[in-house]
Amino acid sequence: MDVMFMITCGRYIRSILYLLLLISVQFGPHAVEGVWPLPQAFTSSPERYPVNSQDFYFVYGRQSAAQQGCSVLDTAFKRYFSLIFPDHNSGSINQHMYLSHSTTRNGHNGSPADRLSWTIYLVPFCVPDNLSISAGKASLNAETVWGAVRGLETFSQLVYQDDFGSYFVNKTEIDDFPRFQFRGILLDTSRHFLPVQAILKTLDAMAYSKFNVFHWHIVDDPSFPYQSSTFPDLSSKGAFHPMTHIYTQSDVRRVISYARLWGIRVLPEFDSPGHTTSWGKGQPGLLTPCYKGGTPSGTFGPVNPALPSTYRFMARLFKEVSSVFPDSYVHLGGDEVDFHCWRSNPDVRVFMQKMGFGGDFTKLESQAFVLQRTSLSVVEVWRAGCYLCEVRRVVKAGLRVILASPWYLDQPGPTHNWARYYTVWPLAFKGSEEQKKLVIGGEVCMWGEYVDATNLTPRLWPRASAVAERLWSDEKQTSSVDKAFPRLQDFRCKLLRRGIQAEPLYVGHCKHEYQGI
Amino acid sequence: MDVMFMITCGRYIRSILYLLLLISVQFGPHAVEGVWPLPQAFTSSPERYPVNSQDFYFVYGRQSAAQQGCSVLDTAFKRYFSLIFPDHNSGSINQHMYLSHSTTRNGHNGSPADRLSWTIYLVPFCVPDNLSISAGKASLNAETVWGAVRGLETFSQLVYQDDFGSYFVNKTEIDDFPRFQFRGILLDTSRHFLPVQAILKTLDAMAYSKFNVFHWHIVDDPSFPYQSSTFPDLSSKGAFHPMTHIYTQSDVRRVISYARLWGIRVLPEFDSPGHTTSWGKGQPGLLTPCYKGGTPSGTFGPVNPALPSTYRFMARLFKEVSSVFPDSYVHLGGDEVDFHCWRSNPDVRVFMQKMGFGGDFTKLESQAFVLQRTSLSVVEVWRAGCYLCEVRRVVKAGLRVILASPWYLDQPGPTHNWARYYTVWPLAFKGSEEQKKLVIGGEVCMWGEYVDATNLTPRLWPRASAVAERLWSDEKQTSSVDKAFPRLQDFRCKLLRRGIQAEPLYVGHCKHEYQGI
Repeated sequence: MDVMFMITCGRYIRSILYLLLLISVQFGPHAVEGVWPLPQAFTSSPERYPVNSQDFYFVYGRQSAAQQGCSVLDTAFKRYFSLIFPDHNSGSINQHMYLSHSTTRNGHNGSPADRLSWTIYLVPFCVPDNLSISAGKASLNAETVWGAVRGLETFSQLVYQDDFGSYFVNKTEIDDFPRFQFRGILLDTSRHFLPVQAILKTLDAMAYSKFNVFHWHIVDDPSFPYQSSTFPDLSSKGAFHPMTHIYTQSDVRRVISYARLWGIRVLPEFDSPGHTTSWGKGQPGLLTPCYKGGTPSGTFGPVNPALPSTYRFMARLFKEVSSVFPDSYVHLGGDEVDFHCWRSNPDVRVFMQKMGFGGDFTKLESQAFVLQRTSLSVVEVWRAGCYLCEVRRVVKAGLRVILASPWYLDQPGPTHNWARYYTVWPLAFKGSEEQKKLVIGGEVCMWGEYVDATNLTPRLWPRASAVAERLWSDEKQTSSVDKAFPRLQDFRCKLLRRGIQAEPLYVGHCKHEYQGI
Repeated sequence: MDVMFMITCGRYIRSILYLLLLISVQFGPHAVEGVWPLPQAFTSSPERYPVNSQDFYFVYGRQSAAQQGCSVLDTAFKRYFSLIFPDHNSGSINQHMYLSHSTTRNGHNGSPADRLSWTIYLVPFCVPDNLSISAGKASLNAETVWGAVRGLETFSQLVYQDDFGSYFVNKTEIDDFPRFQFRGILLDTSRHFLPVQAILKTLDAMAYSKFNVFHWHIVDDPSFPYQSSTFPDLSSKGAFHPMTHIYTQSDVRRVISYARLWGIRVLPEFDSPGHTTSWGKGQPGLLTPCYKGGTPSGTFGPVNPALPSTYRFMARLFKEVSSVFPDSYVHLGGDEVDFHCWRSNPDVRVFMQKMGFGGDFTKLESQAFVLQRTSLSVVEVWRAGCYLCEVRRVVKAGLRVILASPWYLDQPGPTHNWARYYTVWPLAFKGSEEQKKLVIGGEVCMWGEYVDATNLTPRLWPRASAVAERLWSDEKQTSSVDKAFPRLQDFRCKLLRRGIQAEPLYVGHCKHEYQGI
């Protein structure tokens, strides 16, 4: 199991939001298309309203605490305008962005009755966010700006084009909230370097499936692409290439701020004390020299616990990391530490005696590296086998759990095995309601042995979307693979339309095939 | 097994070629990089010559039968100039294309001794094509223009950049020829439609691995995207979409002429009498009505052999196909015919009696559909299991064989299983030399159930390149997976540099990562 470590504690600031969305309204019959992941409560009717990009405006409502200048929503408006109207000339988006309240009330471009108004409220209680589209009125109540961004995604999926290219949206009522608060995707940028552009594109696709955590497994044995300001040698000597295969401080900031605008947290992982081979190149003396037959063998093991310099280095590095990455958590890895090298090293053995660990290297690992910094906070379950047994053990100990075992998507496989990732029941273990609440979510792991920017996207999508629905939607309404299949096929076509290279589920076609080749 | 059917017989026209390639020459040491697929005979030295795009010219030599105006080589020069110098501003390629012989002799841009001259001869005997690079002289002897194109590919792979971006080529001697004459890739455009651009991009990548046959499995059960001039309803009713998911006559001509310039034949397959569900939509009465309990069940089976209209239709369609596709072969498919429906239909049973086939539906299949048009010419072995047993059976019957069974790359799998496709020994069966000569090659099959333009390229490359080396190179020199691995890794980086989205073989990096995302 991986170990997750809390540095500070924070929550998104809440404020009352009220958003108005103005679109022209007419009537006509059409079957509504689906939303992925499935909202908690969803009703729609065949009554449809034409949507015209020329008459479409996002408007902050009068009662909304957020107003123009709220960067998250301002940006979301721009993005979703383009996503809702993919044919629209992007040059004229801005002029269609805002309409002042008074203009609305004064009946500019027609009277209010001709329009749908879409509203986002923040409600300071735990009620479902709500989206309502009807004749002359479309409103969204959201508790947070992040909920509003999710609501914009839902709305964008409800707008469709007919065979002649005209846009429509059907009369719809939606109450929605995520089942789990933690819905993550791990990318591994150490085994292969992923250009920043590939990461940003993945963040786009994550938002479309309502993922909200980017778990950045940024360094590992093969390479150290993070350019540390405190220890620049770590990347200049430990990256695949010191100039072209690194993430500068500016790259990292760009990823974090881009993710934030999609409502996605960036959870950095600096896996240690194992998985640190690349660290040793830029930090001589950090790794444990392994011994064979009483003499150093020339190879190195995990971080050397016997030297005080190790702890000074780790403290300085993690101080930098926690200031660069604003998220309240840093993932410490802590997995797969090989004890053979530690055991072979006489200095480590002396240190063990001194610390009173006896021969228990797990104690050395946890007390020297993890627990000296914080108490264990959240546990990620990643081992194969009976992962629910493991989940049960962890929640019994009163710790929170993130489930990863069933969602290792780096393993290639036929796309139709998406059902394997869909039919996972994270709470199907014996336990109290309180214990089940400790399962805070799950994540898709895209390890990098066989994955880089060439195949990341088709390997991730739409299979990760299957996981997204499991983590977002009500389990009872989404237990059938057969019912989900046509909806997922439809969603996959939406991803193609948005330029996401999502691979096919089976024989068939999309109206707009992928053209990016 | 599939059945291949010869319509006409033809050979590429041979002519004497002499090509001169002029590049500036200096000296310096550098390790030579590899060529994939491995040439038959290859020697190189650390002696290296700088190559400067400003001083680089393709020149048709005095003794060459081909001269400026030979479209295949003129185009190849342009393409390979860009491939050799990826950093070069493409706007100025043309001015660097040609230098007349007299200019060369007159020492324009330096005396001849300063240059490498690269020559392509056609030799009217079966000798290996030869490429020789030494101080002041680089020459290529080729029997055909197609051999010259392959030689340009080899040359382009020999040019490399140092860390400062300067280009070099090492002193090299190469004798080369393909082990097998038929080196194909099958694409399936019926289960998913592949945009023309995806096909052209695949043809590019095929040429880089020296494949020479594009087996176009153009129609099948799910859709009929070929727009027939004789029977336009076949695509207007049988394609996924009658406008956006079809190949017009112009598209087909474009694919054929593009492939030709790379030295790639286009072998069309119109699989019948089974695998024809989509044909029935635009051609009522073509398919056999299936019966259940003595009455038509409403479903349809293979093409109906009992109606004379069927044969008239097939003759007209294949007449068109053989005029649109200039290749001397058309692949007839003929696989997986389900006899249940034929057996259920009383008209078919009457026809069987009339024809004297008794109860033998294989006779009906072969005599009514295949052998009425031609004698069996080449057999494709595609069944799993002991495919060499099947190969042996076919060559014993005196027929030529194309091997496909071990190379079904549409099956996703870990990329490192490329070795499975590499360690295939097509001639490892008991047989005479004459019989082994009947194995004329092999092909990669990329069926379309789970493949479209989103994942075609990473699923195909570099695994198909492993097959390419098996089909091109000497078996004894390429029997070791361990020796091949670093060369294939290097070649995969070359594919990335050329914009081919080839997936990684294992942990590591390329100097120029894929940026096309």
